[in-house]
Amino acid sequence: MDCEIISVGTELLLGQIANTDAQYISQRLSELGINVYYHTVVGDNKQRLLDALDVAVKRADLIITTGGLGPTVDDLTKETVAEFLGLELQMHEPSLQHIKEHFNRTGRQVSDNNIKQALLPKGSIPIPNPNGTAPGVIIEHEKGIFIVLPGPPLELQPMFEETVVPFLQKCSDYTIVSKVIRIFGIGESKVEEMVKDLLDEQDNPTIAPLVGHGDVTLRITARVRKGEDAYALINPVERQIKQRLGDAVYGVDDDTLSKVVSRMLIERELKLALAESCTGGLISDKLTDVPGISMVFDRGLVTYSNEAKMELLGVSSDTLNRFGAVSPQTAEEMALGALAHSHADVALAVTGIAGPDGGTLSKPVGLVYMAIADSYGAYSSKHVFNGDRRRIKEIAALTALNLLRLHLLKNND
Amino acid sequence: MDCEIISVGTELLLGQIANTDAQYISQRLSELGINVYYHTVVGDNKQRLLDALDVAVKRADLIITTGGLGPTVDDLTKETVAEFLGLELQMHEPSLQHIKEHFNRTGRQVSDNNIKQALLPKGSIPIPNPNGTAPGVIIEHEKGIFIVLPGPPLELQPMFEETVVPFLQKCSDYTIVSKVIRIFGIGESKVEEMVKDLLDEQDNPTIAPLVGHGDVTLRITARVRKGEDAYALINPVERQIKQRLGDAVYGVDDDTLSKVVSRMLIERELKLALAESCTGGLISDKLTDVPGISMVFDRGLVTYSNEAKMELLGVSSDTLNRFGAVSPQTAEEMALGALAHSHADVALAVTGIAGPDGGTLSKPVGLVYMAIADSYGAYSSKHVFNGDRRRIKEIAALTALNLLRLHLLKNND
Repeated sequence: MDCEIISVGTELLLGQIANTDAQYISQRLSELGINVYYHTVVGDNKQRLLDALDVAVKRADLIITTGGLGPTVDDLTKETVAEFLGLELQMHEPSLQHIKEHFNRTGRQVSDNNIKQALLPKGSIPIPNPNGTAPGVIIEHEKGIFIVLPGPPLELQPMFEETVVPFLQKCSDYTIVSKVIRIFGIGESKVEEMVKDLLDEQDNPTIAPLVGHGDVTLRITARVRKGEDAYALINPVERQIKQRLGDAVYGVDDDTLSKVVSRMLIERELKLALAESCTGGLISDKLTDVPGISMVFDRGLVTYSNEAKMELLGVSSDTLNRFGAVSPQTAEEMALGALAHSHADVALAVTGIAGPDGGTLSKPVGLVYMAIADSYGAYSSKHVFNGDRRRIKEIAALTALNLLRLHLLKNND
Repeated sequence: MDCEIISVGTELLLGQIANTDAQYISQRLSELGINVYYHTVVGDNKQRLLDALDVAVKRADLIITTGGLGPTVDDLTKETVAEFLGLELQMHEPSLQHIKEHFNRTGRQVSDNNIKQALLPKGSIPIPNPNGTAPGVIIEHEKGIFIVLPGPPLELQPMFEETVVPFLQKCSDYTIVSKVIRIFGIGESKVEEMVKDLLDEQDNPTIAPLVGHGDVTLRITARVRKGEDAYALINPVERQIKQRLGDAVYGVDDDTLSKVVSRMLIERELKLALAESCTGGLISDKLTDVPGISMVFDRGLVTYSNEAKMELLGVSSDTLNRFGAVSPQTAEEMALGALAHSHADVALAVTGIAGPDGGTLSKPVGLVYMAIADSYGAYSSKHVFNGDRRRIKEIAALTALNLLRLHLLKNND
């Protein structure tokens, strides 16, 4: 099956946003063994969208559109696709109910604009939208299969995973199964060196390295006829990779460092306290993205000012004066203080200079100290990160979570 | 002049990277007053690229290609464009010299593959590449203007700024200027209703609504002859919009709620303390993305457990037992506690149910209470948000920042 992705939105043609929807869909389709030969971006303009559809049906048999399902007058993808296929729009009651409930929950009135979102092309399969009001549709038509999705990634991605992927899997004789090995603390080129022979001899399964946000992943992808067991091909390769990379492998598939650390804490019933300075609450934020973390996350202290470090964590003014807020001594006192002033069994502390200002020759922007404390005491480590303020916060937060993970691995009793 | 951008690269169709080149070029072209009506992405395949060019010349008179200028066998954009236009390739000596010097500097031998990069279509204008070996070309042809650029942004962007922009400015008599009005607290369709007549009568400047992450934006875009003042057209429309939407307008262009709130706090030298439960540190994280915030951000307390709420904020166990952790009473005691247990002049507190578990009939997932406290006392507000755990955290954090912004607006003394 050959696919073309048509993304609709003038904001794309003005360069206000990058076309990450097409990237996301392309990535998933390649895992499903579906070829994507073209992406097209067109503005919120009926005639030009009709022209784009006309071009697309000549070179693809699966056409996925993104964007243009909103309530406003220039949202016209669904109407235009319906016109292109000669289908009339009909009110879809369940979608209308969903929209009304959506507004009732938030105590707002449903506007006519939003009611229009429940009009679906005759004979189409609705795609429920848990995170928004606009449903998508799947249309099986003599001109091809048309899948119409909204633009916002928060809405598009769950709709794609829950409804579109299962639909597409039905259309193919092969299944493609992927497993992602997640690695932290080793650079991409180093990882590639360590598994080079595996990368060279790869065929089925294939192994694809990919750099993520601070971590590195190896995607193992096996292609088998329906009914055959893809994991018989994947598992041996996974074992080899894990042997080579050891503790640097922190998880698989949709694991994140936050999820893995949370799992370890919950399994061992260990309560955690955080003391953050330069990461400014980002570690707390990442951990609290994990459902159930409240069982083990006692508190997080964002001690941005020196007063906060002294009053909330008992860091001594002497330490702050002699070694500075960004020092191993302060980091360790922060961790010990978080432990002492909470009900936690283990504490993690981070202090550093996120920039752009505040750096010196001896303490440059990107310098970060991290400490871990438990009943056995505290220890710290020094790190220097590159990038702008946000990047330094991000990589510092992930590195701190990884330190905690390695600490829990080492102290497994 | 109407432009189509054709990006060449199988890695784009596999979703390994997003098409940021097209975004960059589109942004710059809109500033230059050149319409971009289509983006096309095609793989490293000669026939499909020829087909894409064939489609493009029918709907655009300026065609910019990105990618496929590398030394490898599947880099074939320049050759394919030349074939499409019936132009032969000729060795361009200055480019060849540049390539040789590039390799000498890095002490490597020039390969035949790299020498091929100096072959340019007959009659084309070379685009020097200071950051790489592959030159670009500008071709003025009866089929249109063709501009061929390499894929890596580090190479493409300086080439675009130094050679392409001056070339295009010569071709256009107009410039386009945009201003983005940022709105929070009113839904997209409601915003449209409030400015419907402006949207209907829009011509120059144009007004385009766009939904962001929780906020809504209106982009005002004016097109003027070179030398004329675009703001003479933009400013009156901006004033009208601000009159209609009032305090819901929180900023312009690249403002964020965090930046705006930080600016207000810093200007008035007001210190802030945060008490977060369901947002789990996300508000602290957003605020600490703003350089200089340390001047006014005293501390953030992520009080996830009831113990933390009592010990760090002095929330009474009686309140927690009678009204629950998610209640206006608890929210207000959290805010007052954050104020009392810090050096802050104003405190913001958030408590709610982010889900997926923990919801009840009377207190569903998405229920969030927020409170603000200052020397005059505390008050709270109730909110119900839709979406998954992350989305509820995000929208709650933004809504809380907006409450603080409105509080500071009302209490401007």
